[in-house]
Amino acid sequence: MSASADGGPRPPRRSERGRRAIATVCLSGTLEDKLTAAAAAGFDGVEVFEPDLVAAPWSPAELATRCADLGLSIDLYQPFRDLDSTDPARFARNLRRAERKFDVMAALGVDTVLVCSSVAPDAVDDTDRLAEQLATAAARAGERGLRIAYEALAWGTHVSTWERSWDAVRRADSPALGLCLDSFHVLSRGGDPAGFAQVPGDKLFFLQLADAPALRMDVLQWSRHHRLFPGQGAFDLPGFLDAVLAAGYTGPLSLEVFNDVYRQSDPSRTAVDAMRSLQWLEEALALRRPAIGLPAPLPTAPSAPALSGWSFTELEVDGVSGPRVAGVLGALGFTHTGQHRSKPVQLWEQGRARVLVNASVVRPGATGVAAVAALGLESADPGRSAARAEAMSAPVLPRTRGAAEAELSAVAAPDGTQVFFTRTVPDGWPADFLPTGTTADTGRGITRVDHVGLAQPFDAFDEAGLFYRAVLGLEPQEVTELAAPFGLVRTRAVTGADRAVRLALSASTLRRGGWAPGVPEPQYVAFATDDIVTTARALRAAGAPLLPVPANYADDLDARLDLGPELLAAIREHGLLYEEDASGSYLHLVTEVLGDRVFFEVVQRLDGYDGYGSTDAPVRMAAHRRLRQAALLPAGG
Amino acid sequence: MSASADGGPRPPRRSERGRRAIATVCLSGTLEDKLTAAAAAGFDGVEVFEPDLVAAPWSPAELATRCADLGLSIDLYQPFRDLDSTDPARFARNLRRAERKFDVMAALGVDTVLVCSSVAPDAVDDTDRLAEQLATAAARAGERGLRIAYEALAWGTHVSTWERSWDAVRRADSPALGLCLDSFHVLSRGGDPAGFAQVPGDKLFFLQLADAPALRMDVLQWSRHHRLFPGQGAFDLPGFLDAVLAAGYTGPLSLEVFNDVYRQSDPSRTAVDAMRSLQWLEEALALRRPAIGLPAPLPTAPSAPALSGWSFTELEVDGVSGPRVAGVLGALGFTHTGQHRSKPVQLWEQGRARVLVNASVVRPGATGVAAVAALGLESADPGRSAARAEAMSAPVLPRTRGAAEAELSAVAAPDGTQVFFTRTVPDGWPADFLPTGTTADTGRGITRVDHVGLAQPFDAFDEAGLFYRAVLGLEPQEVTELAAPFGLVRTRAVTGADRAVRLALSASTLRRGGWAPGVPEPQYVAFATDDIVTTARALRAAGAPLLPVPANYADDLDARLDLGPELLAAIREHGLLYEEDASGSYLHLVTEVLGDRVFFEVVQRLDGYDGYGSTDAPVRMAAHRRLRQAALLPAGG
Repeated sequence: MSASADGGPRPPRRSERGRRAIATVCLSGTLEDKLTAAAAAGFDGVEVFEPDLVAAPWSPAELATRCADLGLSIDLYQPFRDLDSTDPARFARNLRRAERKFDVMAALGVDTVLVCSSVAPDAVDDTDRLAEQLATAAARAGERGLRIAYEALAWGTHVSTWERSWDAVRRADSPALGLCLDSFHVLSRGGDPAGFAQVPGDKLFFLQLADAPALRMDVLQWSRHHRLFPGQGAFDLPGFLDAVLAAGYTGPLSLEVFNDVYRQSDPSRTAVDAMRSLQWLEEALALRRPAIGLPAPLPTAPSAPALSGWSFTELEVDGVSGPRVAGVLGALGFTHTGQHRSKPVQLWEQGRARVLVNASVVRPGATGVAAVAALGLESADPGRSAARAEAMSAPVLPRTRGAAEAELSAVAAPDGTQVFFTRTVPDGWPADFLPTGTTADTGRGITRVDHVGLAQPFDAFDEAGLFYRAVLGLEPQEVTELAAPFGLVRTRAVTGADRAVRLALSASTLRRGGWAPGVPEPQYVAFATDDIVTTARALRAAGAPLLPVPANYADDLDARLDLGPELLAAIREHGLLYEEDASGSYLHLVTEVLGDRVFFEVVQRLDGYDGYGSTDAPVRMAAHRRLRQAALLPAGG
Repeated sequence: MSASADGGPRPPRRSERGRRAIATVCLSGTLEDKLTAAAAAGFDGVEVFEPDLVAAPWSPAELATRCADLGLSIDLYQPFRDLDSTDPARFARNLRRAERKFDVMAALGVDTVLVCSSVAPDAVDDTDRLAEQLATAAARAGERGLRIAYEALAWGTHVSTWERSWDAVRRADSPALGLCLDSFHVLSRGGDPAGFAQVPGDKLFFLQLADAPALRMDVLQWSRHHRLFPGQGAFDLPGFLDAVLAAGYTGPLSLEVFNDVYRQSDPSRTAVDAMRSLQWLEEALALRRPAIGLPAPLPTAPSAPALSGWSFTELEVDGVSGPRVAGVLGALGFTHTGQHRSKPVQLWEQGRARVLVNASVVRPGATGVAAVAALGLESADPGRSAARAEAMSAPVLPRTRGAAEAELSAVAAPDGTQVFFTRTVPDGWPADFLPTGTTADTGRGITRVDHVGLAQPFDAFDEAGLFYRAVLGLEPQEVTELAAPFGLVRTRAVTGADRAVRLALSASTLRRGGWAPGVPEPQYVAFATDDIVTTARALRAAGAPLLPVPANYADDLDARLDLGPELLAAIREHGLLYEEDASGSYLHLVTEVLGDRVFFEVVQRLDGYDGYGSTDAPVRMAAHRRLRQAALLPAGG
């Protein structure tokens, strides 16, 4: 494990098997920015995307030196478009263009160029001519010690499947001509990687890896705007890579992701995210195939221990929000049972739900801060969880420990939330807290934490899904979108085995601008109860600040569903929200926002309901906005 | 013309013909926010989108009162989904749901509900059953004095064309059942509005208007995310509306636009933009059809006078950037010919290119400010241009005038740029400037302003296109997208007759976040020359700070195109950028960025080239970024 400039851990470089590369087009910035980021994240090589070179101040030879200085090989020059399937005069001009690019490649010291299948509307549909022109160009390349990797674009005029590209390469029968396989182009068209077995391994010149969400749209737009890194989307990348390696491919695993968000995000973060995606993929592949005798890359991280639940959720508060949060926890039936030995942190408990209220954080100039600062997760092996996180390029957080305090390992999630790997045993983290002398009673029926909801920064949504998948071993669920009052919101849960850990992630589909009312990046802790009506009644009696739900909401429920008079009356009386999925139903209630962005929920799942009440979110957001507006109005206004 | 809360002009309300309405779903915010915005923009009525009501704190009767207080009628309640084409048991439940919604409508005082064609996967493909179930529901509505407007969704399971919806309505033959026509659903499927003529006018219950860009994607996603207001997209809305009115429709012109950006933008701005789109549409319709005898709405604004060129471009500078801008104008061959009578504004001239340098703006805390503050456009009738702008809800800017100064009318464009309507005649705006005694010589071959380039704020791109179209009478050109180093950029030019005025608008396709290097929202003025090589040589001799273009750029040009040795040598020698379109070619050069965001270009168009060099923009952006990085490095770094 080597250390990078920013101090985070990085996976070791590889010299041969399983070398990792990234196309410069994946990253934002100038070529200088991109190379720095790729090297810092631990990549072994890059694909040079031609427009990046064209806009760069370095000559090709200077670029080669720069890459060597950074420890990066140049594995591919790309793309060369519309070479073939044309008349002799135009083909001659294309050969001239190719020769100029071969000059560039020679100066770069890269031996492989990517040639894409023609997208010219007037490309000739003639397999013989295609093979002949490819062979001619490959012969020119071969004379200079270079080679052509031919790739079928999913929207190629005539060659749009890997089978057609292989047919052309086979017919051309040139040693300097082989295939480039790209997971997007194959899987977006429903192609079957099983067929790769028919291709001799030495004809597999290059492999490009990209995942993508399941979208119904023009494949060109899908490819150019919405590709994702492996493990972030819906494609079976482990299966794809398995088939490519089984066919004898021995080159680098190289990422080529065109994505609108990554195109404008900090390239050093994107590169780490990208590296993590390859580590995840290598591990998924290793789990899938027998390890012996196949040239798969070896996983570099210890396996993820099972996470069996929530140890605690830590809220950070200040002097204004702290008493308010404590008061509301009390009204929700929590008891202040412990006080941290060395820090101003309180432990509040009810059933197996534990909340830490940390007043040690002071943000200059801010008042009313209340945020989810940390998640404590119950790990079967906290040390191994932490070692895995470090191996997966998660930033490890420094901790200040007192003499009697348990060792806690924490890493930072993409949104900055601290993730602790813990065990709730007497000599574990609870030993840091001195008992207050008050023990938790049965409270108001809250049994445990059901889930935590974290709105993600706009750039971090896909990164976060992969982070929780690759670092913690949680499983991402389906991405859904909802029309909220202040813009569309995307949601995705990540869950552990038996749903003992559920984390509901959300983000705006567009970064919000100047008009951004409502609660910015809301966070919440949802507590479970086995009887929400009884709990709701107790909370109201205790004066918990429950969010008022409009009467129209229950009227609409009544029009749409046949809930029966008793349930409907309870919904109306207690301001409950109700949702159904294919399996069961969900009742939940929401508090006011405490401080600037945190609220609590109490939820009851019935009959295997597996969602998070997201269809009710717009009602909740509008109601929260109204309370905040009312709070801002002058008295009597 | 009534005044609104923010002081801007608003079109007068209409009681009957041509009433203007907007669906609440078009606007961001809570229902309270939306109604306030619609009323302030001068709308006559609204469509109430059910989820907005469900999340609202008002009962339906309270909402009706609120709308009446705001002077808004409620013209439609929508949507009611999946009513028909189902088995008797489910249809009975759907009727129960409808009755509850009829209760809501009665309390709201709205008589028409929108019923969409079923999208249920198991909807029965049986026209008789569809007609029968629609008739049954319509009879229930009719008993209560209500009516159903049936609409074919473009993605309806069986009813996806307006012809099929009309077939069902005709068969059902119920007085309480008619059609809702939606321009998106008809035009997105390539439907022909000419067929509306077969529908009796009294069966056209409602009309929803939306434009859209030409996109190749799933029609549901296209509709839900990318609709635009009339005049912003690629659909023939005037033709559509003409056909609907010719068929006898007499109801309101109502906008229903689902758009990701408008869903999160300030609703008061969106509502003004929406109102302008209807004014544009009414005018386009009036130009299209004879005025007599047809119930078309009357245009409310005087027609747009022709704009014959640029009077001036005004840059605002501060004490740091001012001398730099003046120095560069001098190196470009401009002469300081005039000084404003009462303000610290210099007039610089070369040929017919005029630049005002205004040092009167002080931004606290900022140094090196340089921005395009104003555009002076040569109008055939400045007074009428201003009156039109005011009638089109453009914010009119207050001007402070000295005794001897010409009256200048200015309005604010969506990005805040001031737009002046002027005439360059002796008693026009030049009379405000006292001659310096120095007259402009022939300079370095710059003859006039070719175009001005303005990066738009993220939210304002579509609004700006419609602003220049509706307010100034400029014609929007095609929208293109380019992959720039720091994210995707969308571009669109708006142009006047004979291209005497060209404005190149651009915006990021996603709002930029924390990692936003490069020049934020760059602005530039492009000057024309008839001989760019001679001009370039003169500029270099004069020490103009021209942007260095990487050698790789010319190498790539040479590989791709056969430019001939002379031109290629000139490109290399002078750092020219070169682009071709279907007609001709374009040579341009770029200066360094002056101050925080302004640069100059010199351009030569050959053989009818009609673009703006946008394919070269990534090279320019990377080079500008490099200079800024270099400027920020410590000496010797």
